[in-house]
This record gives sequence, structure tokens and C-alpha cells, in this order.
Amino acid sequence: MVGQSGGPTAVINASVAGIISEALNHECIEEIYGGLNGVLGILQEELIDLAAESQQNIRALRHTPGAALGTCRYKLKKQQDFERVLEVFKAHNIRYFFYIGGNDSQDTADKISKLAQQQGYELRVIGVPKTIDNDLPVTDHCPGYASAVKYITTAIREVACDNEAMGQGDLVSIIEVMGRSAGWIAAGAALAKRRDHPHDPPHLILLPEIPFNQEKVMEDVRRVLKREKYCLIVVAEGLVDADGNYVAADANTDAFGHAQLGGAGDALAEIIGQNIPGTKVRVAKPGILQRAGAHAASKTDADEAYLAGQAAVLAAIDGQTDKMVTLVRGDGDHYTSETGLAPLGEVANTVKKLPREWINEDGISMNFQFLRYAQPLIQGEVTLPHENGVPLFARLDKVRVDKVLGSYDV
Amino acid sequence: MVGQSGGPTAVINASVAGIISEALNHECIEEIYGGLNGVLGILQEELIDLAAESQQNIRALRHTPGAALGTCRYKLKKQQDFERVLEVFKAHNIRYFFYIGGNDSQDTADKISKLAQQQGYELRVIGVPKTIDNDLPVTDHCPGYASAVKYITTAIREVACDNEAMGQGDLVSIIEVMGRSAGWIAAGAALAKRRDHPHDPPHLILLPEIPFNQEKVMEDVRRVLKREKYCLIVVAEGLVDADGNYVAADANTDAFGHAQLGGAGDALAEIIGQNIPGTKVRVAKPGILQRAGAHAASKTDADEAYLAGQAAVLAAIDGQTDKMVTLVRGDGDHYTSETGLAPLGEVANTVKKLPREWINEDGISMNFQFLRYAQPLIQGEVTLPHENGVPLFARLDKVRVDKVLGSYDV
Repeated sequence: MVGQSGGPTAVINASVAGIISEALNHECIEEIYGGLNGVLGILQEELIDLAAESQQNIRALRHTPGAALGTCRYKLKKQQDFERVLEVFKAHNIRYFFYIGGNDSQDTADKISKLAQQQGYELRVIGVPKTIDNDLPVTDHCPGYASAVKYITTAIREVACDNEAMGQGDLVSIIEVMGRSAGWIAAGAALAKRRDHPHDPPHLILLPEIPFNQEKVMEDVRRVLKREKYCLIVVAEGLVDADGNYVAADANTDAFGHAQLGGAGDALAEIIGQNIPGTKVRVAKPGILQRAGAHAASKTDADEAYLAGQAAVLAAIDGQTDKMVTLVRGDGDHYTSETGLAPLGEVANTVKKLPREWINEDGISMNFQFLRYAQPLIQGEVTLPHENGVPLFARLDKVRVDKVLGSYDV
Repeated sequence: MVGQSGGPTAVINASVAGIISEALNHECIEEIYGGLNGVLGILQEELIDLAAESQQNIRALRHTPGAALGTCRYKLKKQQDFERVLEVFKAHNIRYFFYIGGNDSQDTADKISKLAQQQGYELRVIGVPKTIDNDLPVTDHCPGYASAVKYITTAIREVACDNEAMGQGDLVSIIEVMGRSAGWIAAGAALAKRRDHPHDPPHLILLPEIPFNQEKVMEDVRRVLKREKYCLIVVAEGLVDADGNYVAADANTDAFGHAQLGGAGDALAEIIGQNIPGTKVRVAKPGILQRAGAHAASKTDADEAYLAGQAAVLAAIDGQTDKMVTLVRGDGDHYTSETGLAPLGEVANTVKKLPREWINEDGISMNFQFLRYAQPLIQGEVTLPHENGVPLFARLDKVRVDKVLGSYDV
């Protein structure tokens, strides 16, 4: 049984492809089922037969964004829910469970694994890491992260060409990126700079880790505009002030309590417009485009996501359970990675923070330690097949597996 | 003399490359100068020597977004300005002037041409069309438009994969695209649908040409959410209501007269959130990313932009003046295009509207006439060279041409 959970990424389907292709190598695996919308579909016995999909469909998963099995943000809470998952597994003789997701998903997998052990039901549970937020512990990095970063760095290089042509020392260009509690993606924007060109865009990176100091940031913007034709700012959606309040919410809630409009980017634009007269401020908010940007995905990331899927199957076949696949970086100067395993209990509900010592003293740029960490992850491009000028992605047939149990209310 | 004007596109530099490469074929052209920031640089005698650029730099212009010579929105108004342009041309023995831009730029070129004729100064002026807005008359379409459309259709296909995985009949996904007065780009989003799949995303296209009727659009959204897991809406930034007021401004100005936040997408999100309870609404606003998106550019577009540059030089050599290069579509079933010429006076300050008869009766989708028009334009992909995982673009050396005149205040 394979399931996907949480927010999709550009490469989460590559992990599904890795699981399926590896599973087919092992005779002890008779059927390969997918749970639709993660545990939500498993609870409701909404299962599909992945072995029935065409080979070209599975191959296409390697470059298809989104989550082809559907995903969910449903968190199993009641004991009854966990019991039901095992009931479904037993009904279909599921002995291997691969769950691809972030923190919450690994926690879910951990609890299912432990309940199976308690009940003496032989089940091997292996988690596969996935999150653009890059905040899972133990693993060096998370599949999905690098492709989001590559999308953003590509956009910055392109927008910089446009800004350079338009700016006359008066243009402020803001790109709001994802990252509600950690600045991993915003930090990744630093890779758009050429080596040894600290003045390349992005000129300011505003991270959730560094409380927003309006006076300082306005000074930073003014300084850049004296030096450059434009000031390109990358701001994480989760930027907070010294009191921990979101900058977005702060600037956007009016006296009537109208619903919040826009986000950190729009709020920052307003602040700059009010404080630095004469500037033209432009905001881009790629939103979901950045986590679905398969056409700007990192080949390294897509390959590692596939590899993580394969490794999950190999670990299960090898008798492992209650583990998550990790990515382990080699020691050499030249980047290499291989997979490892970590106990789910060590992963679940723990968050890996962006190290404070990787942020420069100025609070708006990243140092060589971060660059050394992130640079290798965005290497290589994924070429998408096109149909009539637009990318062609996998569309699974989703042949349903017959239900054998009664219905279940979630 | 070559100049770029107005908002940059993903392929405006391809036209510069076409002009330079063709100019080098003709011995009567001794020097190739670029005016920095369009007429603004010409007024101030800020000129660069384009023949001194490396060949690899000029080749790289074919895939570099932005405007490598710099651009401006400066409109020549005073008679004195026009006189000064000719003074600069005379000082540097400029006999061919190529101006790449949209409506205003073609008007500027027209006026410069006519003044030269009045003064008996032999000057050949050829305009090269450029605008993502696709609103220049006479020419079948405008270089820059198709690449913006290809960027948006690529994004829609990708976001659709993500939305399909996340939605449960409750997700509304809004992508705000450029187009302040015409819906050409928003209409182009229709190309993301597969042929004969009218229910494919984008489910609703909201054009400036169709006044926003809140009740109808809410009904449209409800209908889509009954049928699909999500409703993907493309909205043009210039969406207006029946009274001609921007929907963006309307929803965003509060009682204190606070500066407008966000745009049409955010405004629409608020309206949907208030009127259709239980929906989750997500907004993406790619902004400048869509006109700078060289990594998702149309090869057809980039090639035509290059061709238009070459054709401009050939026309000038041939003795033509006061003309703009046009793109002329062949009559056959299979798309072909060649260049033509139109008098600048016919082009300047006239706007080509999106034909009303290309919009379906439902007001939210495009019919086969539009698809037949637009489909061929987005064919083919441009492959970008990468450096350390990010796209590598041309950086001109910009060797300055010595000034021979006194300074000029603009």
C-alpha cells in the first residue's frame, strides 16, 4: 500500500514511481495498491490498483507534479481510526505500507506501525520523506525542497533581467515565497547569486527566523537603490515582527476586521511605498506554482525522490519497519548522496530549523555554509514532454480495488 | 541605432539579436549602436557599441528575458525632444533606426521618421513589434505574447495536478494574469485544456472584455465545484464590473483610503470566500514572472522575434522607412508565418481588441476560432543553458560610445 500526504511537491510522484518500479522486482509483493488521498482513502477503503497502470503512466510520474494518488491533511486522531486502517490492511492482506509525506505523515505512519506490532499483525511500515519545507530531522534534506528552490532561483534570474531593464534606482521588486515557520525556501533564493557576487539579486532575503525590523529593512532598501537600478526582495510568507506577529496580518487587517488580503509581499509593498516615496513597488506571489513547478524541477531532486521510493521497498523487503528513508550526504568535496533509515519516532513531530549560523550577520543574506549545503541539490534539469505546446503529465487510470468492508464515516 | 521600449518580454532580446546578426551582413552598416533605455538614452546620448559585444553574448540574447539595452516608458512630447533625437542621430551619422516596442513606441518612431523627412535628413525608421499584450494592429500577433501564454498554460497544467490532489470539491484556485485593458493573455490560458475536454482547467476565464457579474460568477464557481474537485480560475488583472470600475480597486479600498493591496485575484478570493462558505481559496499572482519566463518561452515566438529583427534590417537596406515589421500568417491549414510591413501611422496608437466572437456565449471560455489562432503560437520549447543549476543569461559589456554633444535635460 502506497499513500501520499500533505502538500504536493514537484517530485512526490517520483517517489511513487520508485516504489512501484522496485516493488515489481519482488515476487513476495503480489499486488500494489494506492490509497486515494492518503489515510483518508485508506479509512474509506478507496483503493486503486497501481500495478494495472500502464508503464508509460508510471514513467510519466517521474516528472508529474501534484500528488497523483491524491493527498490529505487529515490527521488520524481517534483510536478507532487507527483500528480501521489495520482492518482495511488485513482485509486486503497489506503487509507493506509506504507513506510519503512530512512531519504529520511520519507520525501517522509511526502510530500505525506500533499498533500493528501491538496487535501482532505483521506489517512493515516505511516512511518516505517529502516536503518543500525541508524541515524533517535526521535526513540531510527532503525531496521536494530543491525543486521549489530551483523554481524560485530561476524566477529570480529572469525577473532580475526585467527589473534591470526597467529600474532607474526607483524600482522595488518583491517575490513572496512559501515558508510559514521556516525560511528554507527563502534562503534557497540566495543560490540565484553568482559566486563571489554578493550584490547580485536577491538583494534582501527576509526570513521568518529574523524578526522584521521596519527601520532596518527600509535602510537596507534605500542602500540597495543607491547602488543598483532596482532592489529585489525575497520575503517568506511567514515573516514575523519582534512580537511574533505575522507582518502580513498586521498590515492587512483594517478597522472593520475585513478578511486579510494578500500576504507578506503585499504588506511589505505597502510599508515601502509609505516610507520610501518615489519608489515603484511590484509584487509577485507565485503561490502553488512554486511547489508544482515541474518544468523548473531539479533533476538531482527528482532522482533522489525516485531513489527514496526504491529504498523504501528494499528496506521493507529486508525486514525493516517503523523507519523513514533518509538522504545521507557523502563526506567528499564532490556531492554524493545515498539513502539511510531513521526510526519514525525520531522523525515524527520534530522540526529541523534553518541553522542561525548559516545566516549572515546582516540578517538578509546567506553564508557559504548554506550555499555549500544547498547548491548541489538544485543541479540538473528535468525535460518535460509536451503536447500541443503544453507539458504532458501522467493521468492515472485509477482502477478501483473492490471494497470488502462496510463503509466508515470520517 | 537599436532601441527597446516599454515593458520587457521573454523574447524582445531575440529581436535585438536578429537586428545585429543581419546588420553585420551589410557593408553599408558601419557601426551598430544601442540606445540605453530607449529614447531616454538616445536623448542623453547614452549609447553603446553593440558590434563590440562578443558573439556568445549576442547568441545568448536569443533566450535572455528582460530588455538587455534597458527600456523606458518615457514618451517624447516636446518638439525639442524630437529635435534632440535627430541631433544625436546626425552627430553619430545614424541612418537606420530600429525601435522595438508596442503602441507608444511605434508612435514615437513614426514621429521621428516624419521629422527627419521634413528636415531632409536621410533616415530609415523601422519598428519591430513587441508586447505581451498582443494589442498591435495589422500584425497577426506580437512577439512576446505567445511566451507569456506558454508560461501561463504551463503553470495551469502544473497547478491543476496540485489542485486535483488537494481538492475535495471545496478548493478554489485563482491565477491572476496580466492584461489591464485586454484579455489576450487570460484568453490564452484556454490552451491549457486538452482538445475536446471543455471541462479541463482553467474552468473559468474572467476577461476584461466581459463585465464581472458577481452573481453569475458565484453560480459558475458553485457549478464547477459540484462537478470537479476544484475550480481553477484565471482572472485578468484588469477585470472590471458593469460600471467599468476595476474589481481589484473596488474590493480593496477601505474606509480609511488605505493604499490598494493585492489585485483582481485577491479581490475575487475575498468575494468567493464571503459568498461560498466552506471553500478554501488560493491565489497566485505570477506578476513579472510571466513576462520574463524565458524557461517556459515558446520557440515559435522566440524564432519569430528574431526573424522580425532580421526583417527590419532587410527592409531598411531595401530603402523602406516609416514602417513596422508585421507577422503575416499563411493561408494553409498548417501554420506558417512570414514578415510583412505596415505604415507606422497605421499601427501607432491603435489597439487590436480580442474579438468578441472568439469568446463563448458563457463568457468564461474561448471558442475554436481563438484556439485555432493561438495554438500554433506556443509550439516548441526553448532550452536554456544553466550554470550551477540556474539559467545563464546574456550580460552585455555595454562599451560606451563617446559623447560628442553637450548634455540634455529630460
